Amino acid sequence: MWGDLILYLLLEGFVLNLIIVENTDSVDGGRYRLGGERAEHVFGVLKSKVGDELRVGMVDGGKGVGVVEAISKGEVVLKCEFEEKAESMQVGIDLVCALPRQQTVKKVLHSAAAMGVGRIFFIRANRVEKSYFEASVLEEDNIRRFLIEGLSQGGKTAMPVVSVHRYFKKFFEDELGDVEKNFGGYDVKLLAEFSTEKMLSEFDLGVGKRVLLAIGPEGGWVDFEVGLMEGVGFEKFFLGPWTLRVENAVVAAIGQIELAVNGYGK
Amino acid sequence: MWGDLILYLLLEGFVLNLIIVENTDSVDGGRYRLGGERAEHVFGVLKSKVGDELRVGMVDGGKGVGVVEAISKGEVVLKCEFEEKAESMQVGIDLVCALPRQQTVKKVLHSAAAMGVGRIFFIRANRVEKSYFEASVLEEDNIRRFLIEGLSQGGKTAMPVVSVHRYFKKFFEDELGDVEKNFGGYDVKLLAEFSTEKMLSEFDLGVGKRVLLAIGPEGGWVDFEVGLMEGVGFEKFFLGPWTLRVENAVVAAIGQIELAVNGYGK
Repeated sequence: MWGDLILYLLLEGFVLNLIIVENTDSVDGGRYRLGGERAEHVFGVLKSKVGDELRVGMVDGGKGVGVVEAISKGEVVLKCEFEEKAESMQVGIDLVCALPRQQTVKKVLHSAAAMGVGRIFFIRANRVEKSYFEASVLEEDNIRRFLIEGLSQGGKTAMPVVSVHRYFKKFFEDELGDVEKNFGGYDVKLLAEFSTEKMLSEFDLGVGKRVLLAIGPEGGWVDFEVGLMEGVGFEKFFLGPWTLRVENAVVAAIGQIELAVNGYGK
Repeated sequence: MWGDLILYLLLEGFVLNLIIVENTDSVDGGRYRLGGERAEHVFGVLKSKVGDELRVGMVDGGKGVGVVEAISKGEVVLKCEFEEKAESMQVGIDLVCALPRQQTVKKVLHSAAAMGVGRIFFIRANRVEKSYFEASVLEEDNIRRFLIEGLSQGGKTAMPVVSVHRYFKKFFEDELGDVEKNFGGYDVKLLAEFSTEKMLSEFDLGVGKRVLLAIGPEGGWVDFEVGLMEGVGFEKFFLGPWTLRVENAVVAAIGQIELAVNGYGK
């Protein structure tokens, strides 16, 4: 799974802000052996040498420093110390996103991981094409690839949990209720919508709140959908006087929630 | 200039929210003849027929409705009525952006146009590679292409004014002052930076303010740069606990300014 990711990053020319390691990379005594292409990144892009220190992050764990103990084009051994505890977000944001086209799914996964989203629910909606559910990006390995890319970029380690839901009504009437029962309820459920002037400033947001944010398809939700979502507790808010691409709507909305909670709500 | 744009949009599968027309397309009596590829979009993607109504926008003018009077793969004639006045933004945001790599420039142009930015200043910074200034995307026709794409997507008509500045010090010490002298000063100059905890909630933002937003390069500003910018009136703010790609930082920051001004500042 690392091959395409690193190739992509190399093509894009980005440098990872955090080298993500997993338990399965562990050798012994805090040593982690990284696969061919992560090694390629450390060797070819970062041009690290033995003794260099790299920022590392353990999936769903802490961040720390990895000292390069051995390096080649094919393999890197890092001796890692994870000094920092896994971060706990001050705002817990989960995301409901009408399933967009494949290229947009990748960007949403990337940004959501980089911005610390906990769960991502991709759902069907009237303006979601059925064929989108067959996209290869939704295969587990591919989802994980773009999430890890986002974690690396964002300097985060908490891997979002992603699920795909093929039935709009069933999601809101059954499945979401089960999630709330098992993992705790949401304090505020938000729905970005043009038919309101109510901005996030008018919601009861504050540190520690659990927020569920819903972002619609490119053409917007249909009335029936907005009605059904309001019926299960969603409230409409006005994001701004723009029609944004889905990936930008996600980023703008999370940015606003962060400000509303930690800027004004503390 | 339309060829590549429309090809790009077709490949991406996006439908334009607004068909942008220019004075140079004008024929007579409110009729506009659109070039080959805009025609292709109306004909091939929107599958419009004679008599259909389309949302149209005049560059730097109003929005309205265009009735299809003639249509072929090669040409579309729209009879346009511009009912709405050119929009005036409640928040006037201009953007200083450390010049990023070519692919990112395109995204920044797109998002900034869609979100109603007035001026975009691309500038040199320590962590900006000199070669970025040779990128073909910075040619006037290409800049315009991506701005129009953003206007179409965002349903906006106000074309941002873009300039490229090769010298960091000269920009802040001379050129920016000239801009403020000629086009009015900024009430607030903002600098997204991790070295502060001050969020936008602590700034004096409100409706009618003119805001200049500075977004740094992928690796951040260096200390000298932050110091110089503070010297000419920029104030640091904390965007959020994330390391974002440049294109996402722009979107998140504009989203927050919108909320700070129109949500809390009104």
